[in-house]
Amino acid sequence: MSNQSPLLVVTAHPGDFVWRAGGAIALAAHRGQRAVIACLSFGERGESASAWRAGKTLEEIKELRRTEGQTAADALGAEVRFFDAGDYPLVETPELVQQLIDLYRELQPSVVLTHAAADPYNMDHPKAAEIAMRARVLAQAPGVAGPGEVIGAPPVFCFEPHQSEVCGFTPDVLLDITEVWDRKVAAMNALGAQGHLVEYYTDLGKRRGVQAKRNSGPNLGLPVNTRAEAFQRVYPQVASELA
Amino acid sequence: MSNQSPLLVVTAHPGDFVWRAGGAIALAAHRGQRAVIACLSFGERGESASAWRAGKTLEEIKELRRTEGQTAADALGAEVRFFDAGDYPLVETPELVQQLIDLYRELQPSVVLTHAAADPYNMDHPKAAEIAMRARVLAQAPGVAGPGEVIGAPPVFCFEPHQSEVCGFTPDVLLDITEVWDRKVAAMNALGAQGHLVEYYTDLGKRRGVQAKRNSGPNLGLPVNTRAEAFQRVYPQVASELA
Amino acid sequence: MSNQSPLLVVTAHPGDFVWRAGGAIALAAHRGQRAVIACLSFGERGESASAWRAGKTLEEIKELRRTEGQTAADALGAEVRFFDAGDYPLVETPELVQQLIDLYRELQPSVVLTHAAADPYNMDHPKAAEIAMRARVLAQAPGVAGPGEVIGAPPVFCFEPHQSEVCGFTPDVLLDITEVWDRKVAAMNALGAQGHLVEYYTDLGKRRGVQAKRNSGPNLGLPVNTRAEAFQRVYPQVASELA
Amino acid sequence: MSNQSPLLVVTAHPGDFVWRAGGAIALAAHRGQRAVIACLSFGERGESASAWRAGKTLEEIKELRRTEGQTAADALGAEVRFFDAGDYPLVETPELVQQLIDLYRELQPSVVLTHAAADPYNMDHPKAAEIAMRARVLAQAPGVAGPGEVIGAPPVFCFEPHQSEVCGFTPDVLLDITEVWDRKVAAMNALGAQGHLVEYYTDLGKRRGVQAKRNSGPNLGLPVNTRAEAFQRVYPQVASELA
Amino acid sequence: MSNQSPLLVVTAHPGDFVWRAGGAIALAAHRGQRAVIACLSFGERGESASAWRAGKTLEEIKELRRTEGQTAADALGAEVRFFDAGDYPLVETPELVQQLIDLYRELQPSVVLTHAAADPYNMDHPKAAEIAMRARVLAQAPGVAGPGEVIGAPPVFCFEPHQSEVCGFTPDVLLDITEVWDRKVAAMNALGAQGHLVEYYTDLGKRRGVQAKRNSGPNLGLPVNTRAEAFQRVYPQVASELA
Amino acid sequence: MSNQSPLLVVTAHPGDFVWRAGGAIALAAHRGQRAVIACLSFGERGESASAWRAGKTLEEIKELRRTEGQTAADALGAEVRFFDAGDYPLVETPELVQQLIDLYRELQPSVVLTHAAADPYNMDHPKAAEIAMRARVLAQAPGVAGPGEVIGAPPVFCFEPHQSEVCGFTPDVLLDITEVWDRKVAAMNALGAQGHLVEYYTDLGKRRGVQAKRNSGPNLGLPVNTRAEAFQRVYPQVASELA
Repeated sequence: MSNQSPLLVVTAHPGDFVWRAGGAIALAAHRGQRAVIACLSFGERGESASAWRAGKTLEEIKELRRTEGQTAADALGAEVRFFDAGDYPLVETPELVQQLIDLYRELQPSVVLTHAAADPYNMDHPKAAEIAMRARVLAQAPGVAGPGEVIGAPPVFCFEPHQSEVCGFTPDVLLDITEVWDRKVAAMNALGAQGHLVEYYTDLGKRRGVQAKRNSGPNLGLPVNTRAEAFQRVYPQVASELA
Repeated sequence: MSNQSPLLVVTAHPGDFVWRAGGAIALAAHRGQRAVIACLSFGERGESASAWRAGKTLEEIKELRRTEGQTAADALGAEVRFFDAGDYPLVETPELVQQLIDLYRELQPSVVLTHAAADPYNMDHPKAAEIAMRARVLAQAPGVAGPGEVIGAPPVFCFEPHQSEVCGFTPDVLLDITEVWDRKVAAMNALGAQGHLVEYYTDLGKRRGVQAKRNSGPNLGLPVNTRAEAFQRVYPQVASELA
Repeated sequence: MSNQSPLLVVTAHPGDFVWRAGGAIALAAHRGQRAVIACLSFGERGESASAWRAGKTLEEIKELRRTEGQTAADALGAEVRFFDAGDYPLVETPELVQQLIDLYRELQPSVVLTHAAADPYNMDHPKAAEIAMRARVLAQAPGVAGPGEVIGAPPVFCFEPHQSEVCGFTPDVLLDITEVWDRKVAAMNALGAQGHLVEYYTDLGKRRGVQAKRNSGPNLGLPVNTRAEAFQRVYPQVASELA
Repeated sequence: MSNQSPLLVVTAHPGDFVWRAGGAIALAAHRGQRAVIACLSFGERGESASAWRAGKTLEEIKELRRTEGQTAADALGAEVRFFDAGDYPLVETPELVQQLIDLYRELQPSVVLTHAAADPYNMDHPKAAEIAMRARVLAQAPGVAGPGEVIGAPPVFCFEPHQSEVCGFTPDVLLDITEVWDRKVAAMNALGAQGHLVEYYTDLGKRRGVQAKRNSGPNLGLPVNTRAEAFQRVYPQVASELA
Repeated sequence: MSNQSPLLVVTAHPGDFVWRAGGAIALAAHRGQRAVIACLSFGERGESASAWRAGKTLEEIKELRRTEGQTAADALGAEVRFFDAGDYPLVETPELVQQLIDLYRELQPSVVLTHAAADPYNMDHPKAAEIAMRARVLAQAPGVAGPGEVIGAPPVFCFEPHQSEVCGFTPDVLLDITEVWDRKVAAMNALGAQGHLVEYYTDLGKRRGVQAKRNSGPNLGLPVNTRAEAFQRVYPQVASELA
Repeated sequence: MSNQSPLLVVTAHPGDFVWRAGGAIALAAHRGQRAVIACLSFGERGESASAWRAGKTLEEIKELRRTEGQTAADALGAEVRFFDAGDYPLVETPELVQQLIDLYRELQPSVVLTHAAADPYNMDHPKAAEIAMRARVLAQAPGVAGPGEVIGAPPVFCFEPHQSEVCGFTPDVLLDITEVWDRKVAAMNALGAQGHLVEYYTDLGKRRGVQAKRNSGPNLGLPVNTRAEAFQRVYPQVASELA
């Protein structure tokens, strides 16, 4: 059922959707669900240190990050829309919120992924989450202007920050992404500017995979090489069975 | 898949499995899953005030509560095993823990339900949860004696205490129990000694149902008269998709 | 003593002061305390879905909600002042804060009620609370311009959100509103646009009433039909006896 | 109303009821309420370092601490009952719990004071609180043996630990003890063995007094020399007005 | 090593750096480390009640507070820079953030002190902390314009609010300031406008000193008259030994 | 200074001191500090699944685990004392507590390491921590019998559980163990029975190392291959400078 409506991912920077949610995105795409990434900035100031050190201009860096982000999204099987809202700091404006309302209404997503509510290492991350959450609530109201129908109440999952415990992140869901792990690796490798993180997130994928095996029920039978991503729910899960 | 291994419910008193988890139990049974309730005491001291005031003896009260508990379990379609471990206070003994280890190994449950970790109104509740949790971990170890095979890692769900917020209970899962609501009502009515609670938990079932509708995704289409029960997970959910 | 200075209630929308604090307001009024509601918006966008679906204009909806809010305030015995600051989103402006500072100084309230600090279902609620809290602190300072005398330190109580546990709301105070319950019912019924919530909040009033009975001291003797509302304190209670 | 039923204070050691709750006890006594202290041990091992260093025997030390505790209780206007249950560690036994159940039933207290739920500096403190809480719940049940009538639901207040923040203690209530401050000083001075703490708790009384002034409502008019003690509620307050 | 790069303190008002961090500042200066205070406002509206009551003008009050702040900084051996950004409310602007970015880059601080993340008594305090934290992260990025080199990752310590428990402040670090206590006293006495707080913070210095003694390891040998200040870390400590 | 008194490590099972604290232990030993491990059980039931499956007897398994534990301790440069108190469950007895009191008094440790306070995957871990904490407090009291002098107040560090976030573990301290990483690897490899964990904890060492680099101050200059272990403090740090 969830395959019929898209997955919407709202991130501050191009890298975020790869490191933190690349597996979830690829999994959705792999199963035929449309996956759309709303990338609010290019990470042109905060996540492009080596490019700045190499003397590139702002426009060159934006273009570089756009290309990388597009390549990564392609590897995951997803669409990406760049909002070019600026980073460091990412600033919430009524225009940006309205663009997201419009996107929610256009897509009618069945699931939303975004950042966690706190990150003392990068304030653009919680700001992007706040914008994503606010726009979702506004898109539910008939009294708020915008194209198309109001949306329902898609569940929201926060993906894992770089240093989870310091951000108050607790894994509620360990998602098995083993079958699309190679796509996540391909997407990670597309991010040349931050290549040193590939090893870090490969290790994290293994660690969360071990935990998924350890926490899974007796009949689940996850393989030894399980790879997983961790998510935290904002709202209670609505379930038709306990499992 | 989860239907093939039983649901195990560990409660301190007979009333608990009805008020707090009757819907989940009936739902499992309704779908063909075996449901077994481990009822550690009869609630003969702490939950039988009117019987004591009526001058009944300890044995009469135990028998009364056993009959009520059995009738309620029948109404839910579940088996119930009474451990007669005493209440007010419920005391953890090595023998009681071993009995539960044996039960885990016998049943190989796919899901476990028990009390929340804190309840300042009734200390038998967290004690029952502690016993259930400990026995589950012990039953996983080949080095711990007991019949049959070690168990896997069935997820554990805490059901809702009487005053949830004071017990630190946060609903992680809202389970739609609409289709078996009449069975829960029948089970509640079997508990003559505590009839005044039926209205309270009927209201709660409606309230959690309204919240389930409010939190469900756009395509879930829950009916107006949705009835629900709330649960809190002890371990992260292991999932093959985000929903 | 507290009867001599007014009760001030700061809410985002007209419905809020009825569903969440109608009993507390009616109780104050019933005992001769002046009760003033600062209603920051008409809820014209976020809480008027059926009116929008019926094709009404923004001005018609505002007028409708104003009338409903006034009727409800009348039923509670309270004054209501509409600030028409807009909703979905409610935006904090220096002008709005100044208006509230002026109101605090005019009223010299002895008690303040407002929303809880978090609500992932409606961001206008925590925003209204933030504004109410900020204006209260500013109104205490002689250096901040505004009419009349600076205020003291009136205690602030957060009223209960729609889904309390998800909002981190823990009841610190259960207020017995039995004697004015019929006034709260009348006020709820004045809110035609959201009539489906009357049952929900009637149930909640009963549930909090049962809890008030359960938590009250031995000599308090609350009646069977106790109705109550739950509140959370922002600041420590200053007491002249423990009770 | 609360004056007619006693105040019951359950502490691990004699010093605790003086340092942490001496003002509350003296205030109750001063207003004509009976105040009874259940002192579970003499603090003979854990709180009598100087006596041990002086070469006194266990019995001598117990007698010393008993005398000090009795003198302090006299200064506060309270009764004290010593349970001689041993300290370092204080061990919960069925007999000790039964003695407390009997005491609850005998006294029918309207208010209960005890330690906070955690204290990494002294595990006897949370253990005493656990015993006090458990006995209170057991004393409510007709099915639990013991003399006299079952008790109601007296509110429980935790008094302030020595290092509040490390113990997770948050002040919910600041009790104005100005009018009995001299009695608390007298009681503190009765505790010769721990005289170095008098200054510490005198400072704390002033600090909590400043905070009481700072947090009190505009009409409360606390004097400059206000002295206060801080308490944390275990259960929600049941109130007939918000103040 | 840390002595070679400056200590940077970001506060909302002049009093804050004295009451809450005066000892830490004096200690750094005493050991030869440069200490620079960024004082975002003069506290001219929120912390100058007596001057307003005395009929002084805004400019007179600012000048008064500037002089006091300068005198206090001198007593501590620190430099102070006033940003005159206004208080009650302190408003974050891009210009103010940029000024702080520039300051971080100029100073290359080894340690940063600022307010705690919450303070329901004074919203300027958490706002100053938010600005300090944001500017620190921005100053780390080569893509953010500003003079000099990007900074590293200096640890951030929150100093103690006026009512710590209500602000969620937990002491992670107790800093021994005994050797510079007289300098803190001198600085406190320089703040004529708030002289009534000197006693309060003298008591707090003693109380934190007693706790430092109580928590220190066996060989630390703190003197009886130890004076201390409490701090809370934002980021994990990076250590080369456990102590 | 801390080098002159020993490091004491209290663990439930032999593996724990290797996986979770092997670096800290080796670092102490490497710097000339005596390191003593109190290993409360052999992990013979709960952590020896493959040996049980291979049909070994209880005594054989204990001997196997003792040899592994001794070899690992040797590799770290530490002494290990086995208490053979049994596992699954590890039960607290007065005798075991007294043995630890005696050990504290004998060693006069300057630092204590033990498990975190919660672990829903293995209840022996928090039980060992509880015993270690209780014995430490008891060993401080002159009134508690035991050999030698009472101890001071050595700081306590909790080492990292297997699934940190689910255990409520937040890293307060990241300890740089790079210079002794090869010793930790050697110790991990000594634990043949649990060889599959070496990769997991190697990854964790790298991940915590990356975080140590990310969180370290500007002048700390940690190398690229930094390896680290995470710890959480039980008591506030007492410091003579902020760093």
